[in-house]
Amino acid sequence: MFEFTLDATDGRARAGVWRLPHGPVETPCFMPVGTQGTVRALSPRDLAGCGASLVLANTYHLHVRPGEETVQRLGGLHRFMAWPGPLLTDSGGFQVFSLEGRRRVSEEGVEFQSHVDGARRSLTPERAVEIQWRLGADVAMAFDHVIPGPSGREAAADAAARTLRWLVRGRERFAALAREEPERQTLVPILQGGIFPDLRREALAGVLEAGPWRALAVGGLSVGEPKPQMAEVLADLETVLPPRLPRYLMGVGFPDDFVAAVAGGMDLADCVAPTRMGRNGAAFTDDGQVNIRNARHREDEAPLDPGCDCETCTTFSRGYLRHLFAAEELLGLRLLSLHNVRYLIRLAARAREAIRGGSFDGWSRAWLARYRSREQA
Amino acid sequence: MFEFTLDATDGRARAGVWRLPHGPVETPCFMPVGTQGTVRALSPRDLAGCGASLVLANTYHLHVRPGEETVQRLGGLHRFMAWPGPLLTDSGGFQVFSLEGRRRVSEEGVEFQSHVDGARRSLTPERAVEIQWRLGADVAMAFDHVIPGPSGREAAADAAARTLRWLVRGRERFAALAREEPERQTLVPILQGGIFPDLRREALAGVLEAGPWRALAVGGLSVGEPKPQMAEVLADLETVLPPRLPRYLMGVGFPDDFVAAVAGGMDLADCVAPTRMGRNGAAFTDDGQVNIRNARHREDEAPLDPGCDCETCTTFSRGYLRHLFAAEELLGLRLLSLHNVRYLIRLAARAREAIRGGSFDGWSRAWLARYRSREQA
Repeated sequence: MFEFTLDATDGRARAGVWRLPHGPVETPCFMPVGTQGTVRALSPRDLAGCGASLVLANTYHLHVRPGEETVQRLGGLHRFMAWPGPLLTDSGGFQVFSLEGRRRVSEEGVEFQSHVDGARRSLTPERAVEIQWRLGADVAMAFDHVIPGPSGREAAADAAARTLRWLVRGRERFAALAREEPERQTLVPILQGGIFPDLRREALAGVLEAGPWRALAVGGLSVGEPKPQMAEVLADLETVLPPRLPRYLMGVGFPDDFVAAVAGGMDLADCVAPTRMGRNGAAFTDDGQVNIRNARHREDEAPLDPGCDCETCTTFSRGYLRHLFAAEELLGLRLLSLHNVRYLIRLAARAREAIRGGSFDGWSRAWLARYRSREQA
Repeated sequence: MFEFTLDATDGRARAGVWRLPHGPVETPCFMPVGTQGTVRALSPRDLAGCGASLVLANTYHLHVRPGEETVQRLGGLHRFMAWPGPLLTDSGGFQVFSLEGRRRVSEEGVEFQSHVDGARRSLTPERAVEIQWRLGADVAMAFDHVIPGPSGREAAADAAARTLRWLVRGRERFAALAREEPERQTLVPILQGGIFPDLRREALAGVLEAGPWRALAVGGLSVGEPKPQMAEVLADLETVLPPRLPRYLMGVGFPDDFVAAVAGGMDLADCVAPTRMGRNGAAFTDDGQVNIRNARHREDEAPLDPGCDCETCTTFSRGYLRHLFAAEELLGLRLLSLHNVRYLIRLAARAREAIRGGSFDGWSRAWLARYRSREQA
């Protein structure tokens, strides 16, 4: 269990399979985000129809509402969400550090006020592991100290060092919990270090020393820093990452960011973009983003994306989808979210196929050129 | 085409089949309402899964947005909504008469301001028929003069007389349009007359004289008058309705109103209640309404309605559904709407079965007693 098999590589891009208790995950893999235990506007049946394998939920959100005890009493996260496939819970680090002005950080952990009811709560490396064990996802994430993208060297070094100390504490608690059920869940460490390649390398060395691990996550990127900086950090880090572990790039991304991440040797990524953009009326296509609210779609009989096999594209015209958004109908939010999730999952499958066929470099360049060539509206 | 076959009667209750261009409609039939060309929060696939046959859309709403020309250019209402089954469009009478303070009624028709953009528009008996012909539903409704439920005798008599004069004008326009395609659509007259049995009988005589028709609709009920008064009017009217035509009771209703309507000899009914109540967190069950927001469902593993076969009830716990409403997740609105629509469609099917088996009276009494016996929360 939790083994990662590398099927093929092409340049730095990799195709593999990660075996998790609730099923295998083919990589590259795009993971839809179900923050509150539901991928917004989509049902589990929709997700299965999109070809989703590994789905995310959030520890912070489920802890403050409905609470991990409730999820546990309702049969655990898989039963709760009615998602029979693999699940991953983020640790809540990113969320509590986002509660600017409503949180206090110490070596022990983070005290914060719930965004739901203002109640004082705290998350520590141990608590984050305990909550996630109760939720019961296939993959749990270690509790990390997240800093804003443009932070300076000192702040980044401090946060990375603390993240490492917290990792060791979380690992101890996890080892105690998992002793009797080692096949139930794996804990994945998160690499911090901001935009400083040497800090990233240092963090990796520390994390590997605290192992063994079944996967590595790269956190603290795509959080406001310039894109070239993120690319530089990733490119350097990739050269020292152990090839045998799957690599999860957190919070990425839009289709072009996703393809760039795969090209840079990443295996898994998640982002709320497909559902959030979908609710705003923006759809991903090979020709770039389509804004369905635009008047030019008013009487367009064509599907949203002629190349797509999702329920939205095989059933409805752009004209109808535009009408749903103009009339503020709930079905519109769902249909565009559905398409965008399917688009990214299919994009990951296309990347995988190209890697296995040894044509990833050409495919990704052609895809990117087309995606960025047209400014659709 | 448009023929109605009566399969069985049991007391005043009737079971039949109405043949429409896009498929047969078994009666009693509950029709989900897709006001703006979408049954709120549900996809056509959801509707098919609920066993929907005849689905409603609204002439007023589609006329002001996106406009019937747009619907026509996008392939007509069936293609637009992607609903391959039978469709019915309401005439818009009810909606324009609801625009209190923004409409002017004359013998010619109704001038009104669009609720979307404030533009001045008008509906006449002829225009309502033309718009519906363009939309292309299987069933079009004649344009009627709707008055508030508690209106006096004089207002009711005036409105009924005008509705009859408008019916004759609409019929002429419809006959001209349908000459070359008589199998495409049928126009159904609406009986008015308020809460006065003699005015209702008079209206019926006038309507039948203006025929022939393939169905009759009873309008202007369930619009604010006391329920016993509505029952009285219906009971009297039923004794003089021709048995060979299907009878559509407009805007009814909640499950108990629907069963009462079937008991009173009605064949078809529509209501926004299942979707509107569902979005408010209220679910229909044989034991009355369940309010899923109630704290007592917090850790309830049971399905919303153990007797139901819908996606919601076969997939999710009450605890999860409550969480979706507490967290204001879109999926909750959809899942409760889906259940309620399925509940009413299944209720119609159960009524039909009881009628065919000669046990309707006992079944409906037992159902009603149970439905009203518990005050669920």
